[in-house]
Amino acid sequence: MDTMGRHVISELWGCDTEKLNNMEFIEKVFVNAALKAGAEVREVAFHKFAPQGVSGVVIISESHLTIHSFPEHGYASIDVYTCGPIIDPNVAASFIAEELGAKTSEVVEIPRGMGPIKMDKKMEMSETAR
Amino acid sequence: MDTMGRHVISELWGCDTEKLNNMEFIEKVFVNAALKAGAEVREVAFHKFAPQGVSGVVIISESHLTIHSFPEHGYASIDVYTCGPIIDPNVAASFIAEELGAKTSEVVEIPRGMGPIKMDKKMEMSETAR
Repeated sequence: MDTMGRHVISELWGCDTEKLNNMEFIEKVFVNAALKAGAEVREVAFHKFAPQGVSGVVIISESHLTIHSFPEHGYASIDVYTCGPIIDPNVAASFIAEELGAKTSEVVEIPRGMGPIKMDKKMEMSETAR
Repeated sequence: MDTMGRHVISELWGCDTEKLNNMEFIEKVFVNAALKAGAEVREVAFHKFAPQGVSGVVIISESHLTIHSFPEHGYASIDVYTCGPIIDPNVAASFIAEELGAKTSEVVEIPRGMGPIKMDKKMEMSETAR
């Protein structure tokens, strides 16, 4: 079914505070994450909040990547959603976790566009390989 | 915890094919959905694909709304993510489902930024009230 998508939800904790507040850095990481996964970048929109925090999205031909960062908590809320069977959203999600210096991450994959929503992987809180 | 977020995943089927292919219409619906829920719009980025389909995002102060539409299948893949305890993402998601003429919808809510990821509501395939 060509509505088939893979949606990775990635909760990153213990990230580098300065990186989480650096919009230019995050934008670059997200574009690179998309390219690394083999996606085609279509639109890029990021926003820097006062006093801190960054929200942004990269729209790719195969869906999107988003971030909301909370530097004061070392927390970043990541979504990587890719359509089709070829691109693996986990490639982008892992790259982002590493670039933001996440100490712990929780990653869940949810199939989209295929009928009933269910979680594909058990949730787990794991130390990110550093 | 002020990283607290509510992420609604909404799978819409049986939508109006023409609406799903009308980028200007979808953009308007999404901005209105954000405002209707009481959110503050920060960035808007939409993309029209050839031969069909629309992807887009509205970044709000409280996180984001996204869509990927597949007119050929009457399917739209919607995410509404809001941070904080005040705004209800379901208000925006319901408005979008109605505006796109969805015949069936499946909606799941996932808490974000609060530790282990779990689905807050049972998934259900229900007829949208028309």
